[in-house]
Amino acid sequence: MIYFNNAATSYPKPPNVKLAVNDYFNHYPVGQNRNQLGGEDLILNIRKRIAKFLGIKNCNNLFFTSGATEGLNLLIAGLNVEEGDHLVTTENEHNSVLRPLYRLIETKKIKLDIVATNEYGIINVSDIIKYVNSETKAVIVNHVSNVTGFTLDIEQLALQIKQKSKAIIIVDGSQSVGYLPIDLSRMNAIDAFAFSGHKSLWALEGIGAVYISESLINSDQNKIAPLIAPLKVGGTGVKSESLKQPTELPIYYESGTQNIIGIISLAAGVDFITSIGLEKINQRVSVLSDYLVDKLQAMPEIISPSFEIEIKNSIISFNILNHDPSEVAFILSNSFDIIVREGLHCAPLISKRLGFFPKGSIRVGLSYFNTEGEIDFFIDSIKKIISSKC
Amino acid sequence: MIYFNNAATSYPKPPNVKLAVNDYFNHYPVGQNRNQLGGEDLILNIRKRIAKFLGIKNCNNLFFTSGATEGLNLLIAGLNVEEGDHLVTTENEHNSVLRPLYRLIETKKIKLDIVATNEYGIINVSDIIKYVNSETKAVIVNHVSNVTGFTLDIEQLALQIKQKSKAIIIVDGSQSVGYLPIDLSRMNAIDAFAFSGHKSLWALEGIGAVYISESLINSDQNKIAPLIAPLKVGGTGVKSESLKQPTELPIYYESGTQNIIGIISLAAGVDFITSIGLEKINQRVSVLSDYLVDKLQAMPEIISPSFEIEIKNSIISFNILNHDPSEVAFILSNSFDIIVREGLHCAPLISKRLGFFPKGSIRVGLSYFNTEGEIDFFIDSIKKIISSKC
Repeated sequence: MIYFNNAATSYPKPPNVKLAVNDYFNHYPVGQNRNQLGGEDLILNIRKRIAKFLGIKNCNNLFFTSGATEGLNLLIAGLNVEEGDHLVTTENEHNSVLRPLYRLIETKKIKLDIVATNEYGIINVSDIIKYVNSETKAVIVNHVSNVTGFTLDIEQLALQIKQKSKAIIIVDGSQSVGYLPIDLSRMNAIDAFAFSGHKSLWALEGIGAVYISESLINSDQNKIAPLIAPLKVGGTGVKSESLKQPTELPIYYESGTQNIIGIISLAAGVDFITSIGLEKINQRVSVLSDYLVDKLQAMPEIISPSFEIEIKNSIISFNILNHDPSEVAFILSNSFDIIVREGLHCAPLISKRLGFFPKGSIRVGLSYFNTEGEIDFFIDSIKKIISSKC
Repeated sequence: MIYFNNAATSYPKPPNVKLAVNDYFNHYPVGQNRNQLGGEDLILNIRKRIAKFLGIKNCNNLFFTSGATEGLNLLIAGLNVEEGDHLVTTENEHNSVLRPLYRLIETKKIKLDIVATNEYGIINVSDIIKYVNSETKAVIVNHVSNVTGFTLDIEQLALQIKQKSKAIIIVDGSQSVGYLPIDLSRMNAIDAFAFSGHKSLWALEGIGAVYISESLINSDQNKIAPLIAPLKVGGTGVKSESLKQPTELPIYYESGTQNIIGIISLAAGVDFITSIGLEKINQRVSVLSDYLVDKLQAMPEIISPSFEIEIKNSIISFNILNHDPSEVAFILSNSFDIIVREGLHCAPLISKRLGFFPKGSIRVGLSYFNTEGEIDFFIDSIKKIISSKC
């Protein structure tokens, strides 16, 4: 089987991730007295390692979620906004951003500007900045589009936004983390960064994390809560006497029993990346992307905005002239044992902009483990589909 | 090592749970085209199996969460309540209920009655009914206390509430499911039932589920949303063109990538219970509970409300006269290799009522896999702690 759906969930996972997960049952559950009283807590240790990987100085500014969807819901629903407040986002967003924002329009009557991309899915920093004014409360942007692979210069965007407003800058890093170097201590104009673990961080499904900057945390943590409200409140294991959620980080945002095996897998995934080297992974995936794009571009029947975008990650979307993407994906799976993703990829606005609506597109999400040979077989399969119209 | 903290997280897990989790890496990720197009989807199959286990007729009325905390937050924060609305809960609740309710007091100015237990943690249906009136919007109760093991007759409570009001009845089943028979089709006055998987259902941490009754779902699902708002909105894989969350169940409540390994472990845990038989598990744990309680009761230095409660589950909490529970738990772990839980168990009100405040109590959470021999060693260790005051 050839697996080209890594932009949804990476597969296969690195051997050390598998070993770490399978080792889970050899240990008694974490969070017992023994962990709390002696030695460093496993979760704290992992939090430190992941914080270091992302250039986060204080690991308490990183908290775990069930995925990017939960992280983005938390950051958007947790915004202290009221009727008439102005927010900005882009057409490149996933429904995990668009639907929480749409809900804020319904529940709090916020005003939302959605910045358009060009016909290839490209959006410039200046396109977004035009919509930001001194009254803008938050700007929510996708680092890397999950449809086109287009990468926004979030560092430059954040710096320019801060010159014009006090807006909170929230980044969806689901498709960038693990491929692009992320140093959040350097990108210090970014206020919040949410991501999932099961894509390019090689973790299990059901785990993700959120970073929030010091600017969103009141220095007197014990008395005044951080600026973003938690999505869930409940058991925190400490200060249990209080009916009010304790405001210390990270527990403010981490009520209830955590997804331990997911957190362990995330640590193993990050370890894999640092052992290989992020740059090497990025270079390898770029080579594969270029290899695939070159071959697709040579076929007149292939329609794709990705040809106009420099791909430094795993994502290439396209359609075949006069073929339904769902039909193509079905044939690829059933006749050629190749798994791709088809449809709108939960990103309706960019799909519309690119002419991929309502049927969507075929998306290839490559991984460090894919090969040129797999791409050759894939291209050959696509050619057979085109020629036979099978 | 003797593990007596099963009321927090069960350990060890049954062999088939371990096998199912370790088999995860042998399959490509679920939710690919192949799953959608051919054969029954794995998650749908599991949803049906778990629904059947709980007597839920329509498996779409069951949706997965990251645990009971998320489920209870969803049910409480999702209530359509406004200023002055009346809600009822009890002192037996966990902070995963109390803190979301306290937040509703702060954000929506609801009125909350918290029904007291007696000095042993016992609460009668009639005690709760007294507080319910025709204006009550919701009643939120713990099925089994995570401090005392006290079991509330939720079926009788729900029937009596429905005679007096239209209140939504929400049950926290975290400590009952897997020990007590739950037939939600028979208990049809209960509107919502939330639980976690990692306790008596033998699943991994980070997975749970919520059942909601037909009464909370509008029959014309495509047009009018269910009565409880979702906690998270986002990618649902279908109807991606809509910026509004699709209202069909279960996707209305299941945005984003699910915790697949957690769901697989939950199915395996339920399979284990049905293979052994719930009644047999309950009888075995009751035998162990009685064995432990008898021995504790014979020791004049032991203080416990559990002696007054018929335990049909795993939970016994107590203190040793003139000993700090944290000190006892530390010694049990370090000198005797026995893991218990100590503290307030995230249940401050019942801990106060029982005189377990502010230092809390020692909690033993037994499992089907514990033995009389382990209890003998535990009792011997407790005696040594008492006699040596080590």
